[in-house]
Amino acid sequence: MIISMKLGATQVELDDVMKAVETSGFRPFLNPGVERQVVAVLGEVDIDKVELMDQFSNMAGVERVQLISEPFKLSSRQAHPGPFSVSVGEVSIGGTRIVVIAGPCSVESESQVLETARAVKASGARLLRGGAFKPRSSPHSFQGLGEKGLKMLATARAETGLPIVTEVMDPHDLDVVCRYADMLQIGARNMQNFSLLRWTGQTRHPVLLKRGPGSRIRDFLMAAEYILAEGNPNVVLCERGIISFEDASRYTTDINAIPILKGLTHLPVILDPSHATGNWAWVKPIALAGIAAGADGLIVEVHPDPQHARSDGKQSLKPSKFADLMAGVARVAPAVDRSI
Amino acid sequence: MIISMKLGATQVELDDVMKAVETSGFRPFLNPGVERQVVAVLGEVDIDKVELMDQFSNMAGVERVQLISEPFKLSSRQAHPGPFSVSVGEVSIGGTRIVVIAGPCSVESESQVLETARAVKASGARLLRGGAFKPRSSPHSFQGLGEKGLKMLATARAETGLPIVTEVMDPHDLDVVCRYADMLQIGARNMQNFSLLRWTGQTRHPVLLKRGPGSRIRDFLMAAEYILAEGNPNVVLCERGIISFEDASRYTTDINAIPILKGLTHLPVILDPSHATGNWAWVKPIALAGIAAGADGLIVEVHPDPQHARSDGKQSLKPSKFADLMAGVARVAPAVDRSI
Amino acid sequence: MIISMKLGATQVELDDVMKAVETSGFRPFLNPGVERQVVAVLGEVDIDKVELMDQFSNMAGVERVQLISEPFKLSSRQAHPGPFSVSVGEVSIGGTRIVVIAGPCSVESESQVLETARAVKASGARLLRGGAFKPRSSPHSFQGLGEKGLKMLATARAETGLPIVTEVMDPHDLDVVCRYADMLQIGARNMQNFSLLRWTGQTRHPVLLKRGPGSRIRDFLMAAEYILAEGNPNVVLCERGIISFEDASRYTTDINAIPILKGLTHLPVILDPSHATGNWAWVKPIALAGIAAGADGLIVEVHPDPQHARSDGKQSLKPSKFADLMAGVARVAPAVDRSI
Amino acid sequence: MIISMKLGATQVELDDVMKAVETSGFRPFLNPGVERQVVAVLGEVDIDKVELMDQFSNMAGVERVQLISEPFKLSSRQAHPGPFSVSVGEVSIGGTRIVVIAGPCSVESESQVLETARAVKASGARLLRGGAFKPRSSPHSFQGLGEKGLKMLATARAETGLPIVTEVMDPHDLDVVCRYADMLQIGARNMQNFSLLRWTGQTRHPVLLKRGPGSRIRDFLMAAEYILAEGNPNVVLCERGIISFEDASRYTTDINAIPILKGLTHLPVILDPSHATGNWAWVKPIALAGIAAGADGLIVEVHPDPQHARSDGKQSLKPSKFADLMAGVARVAPAVDRSI
Repeated sequence: MIISMKLGATQVELDDVMKAVETSGFRPFLNPGVERQVVAVLGEVDIDKVELMDQFSNMAGVERVQLISEPFKLSSRQAHPGPFSVSVGEVSIGGTRIVVIAGPCSVESESQVLETARAVKASGARLLRGGAFKPRSSPHSFQGLGEKGLKMLATARAETGLPIVTEVMDPHDLDVVCRYADMLQIGARNMQNFSLLRWTGQTRHPVLLKRGPGSRIRDFLMAAEYILAEGNPNVVLCERGIISFEDASRYTTDINAIPILKGLTHLPVILDPSHATGNWAWVKPIALAGIAAGADGLIVEVHPDPQHARSDGKQSLKPSKFADLMAGVARVAPAVDRSI
Repeated sequence: MIISMKLGATQVELDDVMKAVETSGFRPFLNPGVERQVVAVLGEVDIDKVELMDQFSNMAGVERVQLISEPFKLSSRQAHPGPFSVSVGEVSIGGTRIVVIAGPCSVESESQVLETARAVKASGARLLRGGAFKPRSSPHSFQGLGEKGLKMLATARAETGLPIVTEVMDPHDLDVVCRYADMLQIGARNMQNFSLLRWTGQTRHPVLLKRGPGSRIRDFLMAAEYILAEGNPNVVLCERGIISFEDASRYTTDINAIPILKGLTHLPVILDPSHATGNWAWVKPIALAGIAAGADGLIVEVHPDPQHARSDGKQSLKPSKFADLMAGVARVAPAVDRSI
Repeated sequence: MIISMKLGATQVELDDVMKAVETSGFRPFLNPGVERQVVAVLGEVDIDKVELMDQFSNMAGVERVQLISEPFKLSSRQAHPGPFSVSVGEVSIGGTRIVVIAGPCSVESESQVLETARAVKASGARLLRGGAFKPRSSPHSFQGLGEKGLKMLATARAETGLPIVTEVMDPHDLDVVCRYADMLQIGARNMQNFSLLRWTGQTRHPVLLKRGPGSRIRDFLMAAEYILAEGNPNVVLCERGIISFEDASRYTTDINAIPILKGLTHLPVILDPSHATGNWAWVKPIALAGIAAGADGLIVEVHPDPQHARSDGKQSLKPSKFADLMAGVARVAPAVDRSI
Repeated sequence: MIISMKLGATQVELDDVMKAVETSGFRPFLNPGVERQVVAVLGEVDIDKVELMDQFSNMAGVERVQLISEPFKLSSRQAHPGPFSVSVGEVSIGGTRIVVIAGPCSVESESQVLETARAVKASGARLLRGGAFKPRSSPHSFQGLGEKGLKMLATARAETGLPIVTEVMDPHDLDVVCRYADMLQIGARNMQNFSLLRWTGQTRHPVLLKRGPGSRIRDFLMAAEYILAEGNPNVVLCERGIISFEDASRYTTDINAIPILKGLTHLPVILDPSHATGNWAWVKPIALAGIAAGADGLIVEVHPDPQHARSDGKQSLKPSKFADLMAGVARVAPAVDRSI
């Protein structure tokens, strides 16, 4: 249930509504809207909701009470009408300007990160990605450099000015990752690691939440809901391919998810064409497709020497190919009223 | 196996190669290439193919013999290097110019077809689609107007000049459909109706082959192979969405399939954003995504009054929305070096 | 809509109801029930069905009128309460006794068919399967022996007494296949070849309808509906594996479909563990699982020399392995109150 | 790579091999086999493995060196030939005797747990399941009673003697869960929460690892590998349904996975028919199918009052229905040479 307050509602009126929600056994959550105050009514209580709607509708300062059919509330566009963007350092994701995040899958060495950072910045990337804690299918594979890797990312940021996006996998690592990262990434395999989502929601860091490859769009939004419910509104959603019977590509890019998500939620939506295809040869056309479909940005794997990458080499672009991709984005973006 | 002849190979040299293939127990198929003659070696004989490669490689006029790892031969790009396009009347599908096919799901009345045909032509569509024989999930649903519907399409063609694309479902109907249609459509549910593919391959009509929603890309190409193997080279492939666990949209647009198919085959590839999404609200962004990803065209459902359409109303565009889609295509196409 | 007549309803009362249905613009279909007469109301007319229900409910001899929420009507258990079985020669599918159909994927030679037929009969199979017209992914693969193959099957039937199940792919072949076959098989790839379904429905042959690997259960029942709507009630449904992201097996056996189908429809349901797994090593455990889940029978691929089979060798059982499978079925069947 | 020592190999010979593996840059892992000692060679080093195989093969006490093509090593049947079972208290999972785990989805109250525990014990269940920390799609749903719930489970154990299986979601909760639980459950959504897997591997508790609904069988085994690689060999695998396009059931039971897993790994494999179907009406037939296919046990949701369950009520059995299921298992198990 969503209670929208009138435009000129007073603080006292708002407080009364919040108290009434609590009395009814639910948890009120004040959604910091720009134009008007919106109270989400959270929790599951065995009370006739229609009766409750009537009760709230009659209170002073209340404009409208809506029953939400979708289970996601905080991430719903209804809860946040109007524009919304997430700031990472100086970069704003979700506005007219397309944001491209680029960098290696894994941080392997300082020179590798620095070389990549310089190259992607030169081509127009605005954030640097790189994994220091790596979720790998096998425990016997390279697991990332840990804090050493984070320091290399920080060095690259110091030189290039690009804010850092990096993955956190374990609540125990959250502190150390937060010390270095500008934006936390929740990986696809942890999309329903609800504990990690909660802990992340308690930080003030913006979060890049990747869709689980076997997760429906509504479960994706419910995962975002976990972060928002802890008080952190700064979530960017990332479509990165889903599993299907088609095995010609590593995953199936769910391009439909772009307009669907943009319709359901105010949260920014970006596309990861590297994981979604699994093959560098298809990264550019799918990246352009994502922009044409309305994505707010891209996250792309770039490696100076893909053949010797310790992970995801097959889907990583060389810096020159990335430059070519960015040239393509620069042409398609204006055709859908976006800039870069 | 593919035998590429030298550029200046003589007819006698070619005939010798063809004869040698037959003697070995295989069936030679001369692929009418533009630059050079290419012989596909068809059939399954228990002979050591490597030995055979050596034998053919040593013949006069032969440039190169390649073993094909993919099971599709005639539809493989290797079998047809260089550009290729399919002509439907005056319209050429597969060149630089994007071709948009539009019209109602089902032909319902002459006025409905005429009104739609005029509107889509005005917005830039170059072929008219419309179903007279309809494959419906239920035998109790509207099954199409049959030949009466074909006549209405012909009337619309006479007035607007738009060539007609219409589905054939039953070999018994092939003659009557061929009398009216400029291009035959094989529907998604019949993609592996191998008998129908063969019969269609024996006509001289260009064929629009829709991908089965549960079919892999390689099976899609093998279905095209059935038509090509009968001697009809004029096949256009249409991605129209695959099934997946995601139920927010009717199907999942396999946008990856666009660049993958363009890499594997010389056959033109178009996208059907209407079926691939199942919802008119997502048709435009997905159509633009298809163009950005490299599709050679689109097929779009348009109905003057979607709410009263006898089929697929939910995913049909009103003429005004179609005009808006075409305006979008006109902007995105040049950004990927295509025209409209 | 389903109109159930009272137990003692007269022919005149029934005729009146049938006429009233026609007058309303629908098509009445008399379902030959054992205990009571049931009229299905077919077609799509823009009439308020609730109003119509009232009208019919008030007629003499009518017991009850039900709105059917499922789109399948004739194949619904509601349309045919009580037991139902399909007879193929002397064999009855759908009763307490489990029916096992066995034989080679393709008919390759008279000796191969005869040897297999003798072996599977000795182990307890009650019908003989074998393909003479083969739907193959590639036009360049072995396509079956055609009528010559049908004759070989007939020879095997003459010697062993086993009725024959064989596939029909093309309406043009229906006559010849009907001359030899005791039961027609519609293959998985033709499950939504609605023309073929209709033609088959016009024969009096029992039909084995295989589920399309990308088809939902409700579409499977709608395909059966096409056959039933033409007046042929003798349809046996066959689960044979669906496509999924899991690639360890060729298909994913949808074992849930067995109890689900048994709940929705009166039509007998059998399992094809050969296609559903794609590997002979898993055929026996999955066959037993099918029986335990409630299947009415099995169809199993058996070949005297799987390594040299012209199709599906990997999933074919040797006669000795088939005997072992049958021994397993003989133990599991009584544990779920079935016999063999 | 797997190094199998000869049956009478000495400790000195074994130590030498372990040292040689370390020197080569890999990590040796001594697999505590019953009959013979087996050393797994872990890690990824850029060394020619064939060369290394030769080197190790020549060492004293070595019987055989095998390259493992599958990426899972410790969970591979090759690494552990011969029988294997996991002990939970007095109960042994993986032997001839079928083990059934039963209990409510969520622990809701002491009386609910006690009533259920008594009932399932009376029907033959040998372990008690119950969730105190609940992974829920929505942050606004009931999240479990936490330690209070664990105490209720302990009370039920004290009375009935049934060991307890309960889920752990967060590394921070591992200590408290370990204090109460006899067996730790890793839920389906955390199957690739590699941090949690590692932490769990460092306990000495047996682990019930549920398959992620979007995870391939090889990824499932790799997840088990994470636990095993930390030194905890006591993992039981649980198939609980995968996602697919079929929406008639909540998930698709991957029954093929039972024989496939039994062939690939020595780890015990059980089936969860409650989640795999999502509907109590299909739980019994699918449970019996699992036993017939070779599962070592079942985990079943039972609730004294499913209509008022706080989670998963739709798929929970009443105690009387569970008794009926157990009666069915008691009949099917002997038909596949198992007891209960």
